[in-house]
Amino acid sequence: MPPPVPVAEPRIAAWDRRVDWWLTGLAVLFLVAYAWQVLDTSLTPAARVVLEVVLTGTWVLFALDYLVRIALARHRWRFVRTHLLDLVILALPMFRQLRALRLITVVSVLNRQLRDDARGRVVFYVVGSVALIGFVASLAVLEAERYAPDSSITTFGDAVWWTMTTISTVGYGDRYPVTPEGRLVAVSLMVSGIALLGVVTASIASWFVENLRRSDAVVERELDEVSADVNRAELQLAAVLVELRAINDRLDALERSSRPS
Amino acid sequence: MPPPVPVAEPRIAAWDRRVDWWLTGLAVLFLVAYAWQVLDTSLTPAARVVLEVVLTGTWVLFALDYLVRIALARHRWRFVRTHLLDLVILALPMFRQLRALRLITVVSVLNRQLRDDARGRVVFYVVGSVALIGFVASLAVLEAERYAPDSSITTFGDAVWWTMTTISTVGYGDRYPVTPEGRLVAVSLMVSGIALLGVVTASIASWFVENLRRSDAVVERELDEVSADVNRAELQLAAVLVELRAINDRLDALERSSRPS
Amino acid sequence: MPPPVPVAEPRIAAWDRRVDWWLTGLAVLFLVAYAWQVLDTSLTPAARVVLEVVLTGTWVLFALDYLVRIALARHRWRFVRTHLLDLVILALPMFRQLRALRLITVVSVLNRQLRDDARGRVVFYVVGSVALIGFVASLAVLEAERYAPDSSITTFGDAVWWTMTTISTVGYGDRYPVTPEGRLVAVSLMVSGIALLGVVTASIASWFVENLRRSDAVVERELDEVSADVNRAELQLAAVLVELRAINDRLDALERSSRPS
Amino acid sequence: MPPPVPVAEPRIAAWDRRVDWWLTGLAVLFLVAYAWQVLDTSLTPAARVVLEVVLTGTWVLFALDYLVRIALARHRWRFVRTHLLDLVILALPMFRQLRALRLITVVSVLNRQLRDDARGRVVFYVVGSVALIGFVASLAVLEAERYAPDSSITTFGDAVWWTMTTISTVGYGDRYPVTPEGRLVAVSLMVSGIALLGVVTASIASWFVENLRRSDAVVERELDEVSADVNRAELQLAAVLVELRAINDRLDALERSSRPS
Repeated sequence: MPPPVPVAEPRIAAWDRRVDWWLTGLAVLFLVAYAWQVLDTSLTPAARVVLEVVLTGTWVLFALDYLVRIALARHRWRFVRTHLLDLVILALPMFRQLRALRLITVVSVLNRQLRDDARGRVVFYVVGSVALIGFVASLAVLEAERYAPDSSITTFGDAVWWTMTTISTVGYGDRYPVTPEGRLVAVSLMVSGIALLGVVTASIASWFVENLRRSDAVVERELDEVSADVNRAELQLAAVLVELRAINDRLDALERSSRPS
Repeated sequence: MPPPVPVAEPRIAAWDRRVDWWLTGLAVLFLVAYAWQVLDTSLTPAARVVLEVVLTGTWVLFALDYLVRIALARHRWRFVRTHLLDLVILALPMFRQLRALRLITVVSVLNRQLRDDARGRVVFYVVGSVALIGFVASLAVLEAERYAPDSSITTFGDAVWWTMTTISTVGYGDRYPVTPEGRLVAVSLMVSGIALLGVVTASIASWFVENLRRSDAVVERELDEVSADVNRAELQLAAVLVELRAINDRLDALERSSRPS
Repeated sequence: MPPPVPVAEPRIAAWDRRVDWWLTGLAVLFLVAYAWQVLDTSLTPAARVVLEVVLTGTWVLFALDYLVRIALARHRWRFVRTHLLDLVILALPMFRQLRALRLITVVSVLNRQLRDDARGRVVFYVVGSVALIGFVASLAVLEAERYAPDSSITTFGDAVWWTMTTISTVGYGDRYPVTPEGRLVAVSLMVSGIALLGVVTASIASWFVENLRRSDAVVERELDEVSADVNRAELQLAAVLVELRAINDRLDALERSSRPS
Repeated sequence: MPPPVPVAEPRIAAWDRRVDWWLTGLAVLFLVAYAWQVLDTSLTPAARVVLEVVLTGTWVLFALDYLVRIALARHRWRFVRTHLLDLVILALPMFRQLRALRLITVVSVLNRQLRDDARGRVVFYVVGSVALIGFVASLAVLEAERYAPDSSITTFGDAVWWTMTTISTVGYGDRYPVTPEGRLVAVSLMVSGIALLGVVTASIASWFVENLRRSDAVVERELDEVSADVNRAELQLAAVLVELRAINDRLDALERSSRPS
């Protein structure tokens, strides 16, 4: 869902604008239900069913959004082809083992909202992203690892701590995932950590480089001056032409008067 | 306290200039007392009380500084809103468990002083910051972990070593914090480590890019030449106009003389 | 094989273009045979021999390609000197202990293909490279470590997991190589990890800087305007000259007519 | 010794040029003797004494070089003040515990030589630096840790492996130093690792940015064109002036002839 639809698909763009906040709301709802399910270990069977219904329901709505977007597309085939990744992360969680992939859609919807809110404020966006990804990863790794034999991540506190050591690429190794699902979460965090480092470094670097760029402003100012000079020269040339035409007219008159008088 | 008050608040700016060195002195005093309390395990109860009084006293003075700044603000509400983080890290340490947060204020005051001293000397600033943050983090993690069961950080040497492995994101895992307070210190160090890496990389990159920028100087020099050329052209045009006006005057005279002779 | 041959060697360039896809095919074949040999632990002795023949056969073909390129070179000595590294990684695997080095040639051939396919799409190239290097490294470390005493990497899952923790420089230390061959693989991965971090950061930074460069477009647009202004001034000057010549001609006529009347 | 002496000290600069290669030779000699002493555990007491004499002798020569440079300085006090760090790392190894600091001088001399040889070839310089620092650090950590209780670094192979995991900031934690000297080596490696990452990233970034800078060449070419246009306009103006002066002269003649003939 995240990448903005090119202008060639105005109906999808309109739909996106209309459901934007609904999708964000759904994502938050999903996240709350998921967190509740993972963190509250004393849930009654009834409550567990309710949460499962909420989780599946929001999921179905995300799938519906995708189907509506296909239906609205002018070039359906091209739309499906360019949104193949969305299809994959929507379809794969139908297999029970890959349910954790639902979190990718949720995170990408919320992350997009965050990016739109943070226009230009890189610090705000980075902190928000890390908090969102860290929270979701902590929940996912806890769900995956909690009851695994030899697991070292059994409480939410442990999960958060492990998430921080992983996303910062410190990796003490006092806790680490042992299940395939947990390791998948770890790989996502590593990728996020590398991206995080990249964004932080790039922000600082571009801020440093921006200071260097003041010379560009100087170039622009000098160009403006040259431009003004040339314009003044053009005005002078216009005046020259006026004078010359006057001379020609007078010479005409002179010629006429000096000829056979 | 750190961000410079915008010019719209001249009274706060004046106050800041006046108390700048006092706050730095207070921060150093706090740090000495804190280090003493943590490192000297054979303190008498009386000495312990004295140090506690110093620590609380400097704290109260920091809080007073904040209150004075609110009192001096033209737009009080806006001041509080834009300095919310300062308020939080000043107020939270009132809870005994969060006392370690007092160090954030102290570090931020000293770090600001360091930044003002280091104007443009990135190496000096980076080394100073890392030394300051590393020292404070070593003390804080030692205080948090020393008496924790299963703790692996029990001496100041261990704490410094652990701090170095964390801020460099190496993370051997021979030592790691097990208490929530210690893990909070670790997260601060990870953030510092990522920022450190970013600043080092960005400095080198901007130094590399600066070398590339010599072509900008070429552009500026060429622009100066164009500008000089255009100016010369303008002078020539002025001369042209002088000549033309002379011609017109002569033609006037000719006309007058050639008419009724 | 990877670096493009300079134009000074047209025959080698032609040969490269002709065998390009064959080499890629050979590399894929080698990789499949190697993966099979490593991953399928229940191979019959006969199958093992077949795979060994495939591996050695592709190897001989890579060596032949190198010899042909020497034969085609205009400046043979210079070719050998500038392709010394290729020679080394082709010759060293003749020693049984260094057989793993064959993978470097295979990865470099495939990586070049990937780079040519990914022209400008950094994300695609980075993901492809990491997947290729990660897969090959997982196979190599598994082959090296599987039967080593005290080894912690004994299944392909473990090997992939260890590869990910190493290339991201997280390094939990739950698994680590203990044999010299495994450690060589680890060092390759560390180098790749540092390069990966560099490419990701540099891509983000150049994207940030590109946004800053919009001012350059402004400079160019202003320059175009100045250029248009100057051209207009030149046209005006041409008109001035036409007028002046007309005046001169008329004055000629006047002179002639006003003289001996 | 490393930073180039400013031109204000021509006699020191001349001395530096003369002893440059001698210092490099001394550094290599020191390194060979040091490596021998550390790696050859079956040294006879006599051989051990010889190596110790070589190590102390080269050390004394480095100290002499420093003294000569002070003697040659025009502004002695300023020289000492700006080369304080050199003094410290020369003087501190007189204390037996800090002998490892001698390696800093040796590495800095060799690293300078490497930098001069590698002018502009970043890859060559980075690889050379990492190899040099890694080799020296492996020797130093081995000497420090070999006989320490609970040490995990007891062979040169282990030391090299640990060095690689540290400089890449992977830090598995399968081996780590336990002595203060070993930890000092580790901190040096961490600093080198961060610098390494910075240089690699910055090189890639500046290479990416350089590609972006092609637009600057466009600006320069356009500027050249504008400059040529303006010059052509100036030539035209010169022609205009010639014509105008001719007209004036003719009008003069006309005036004279048309007056009282």
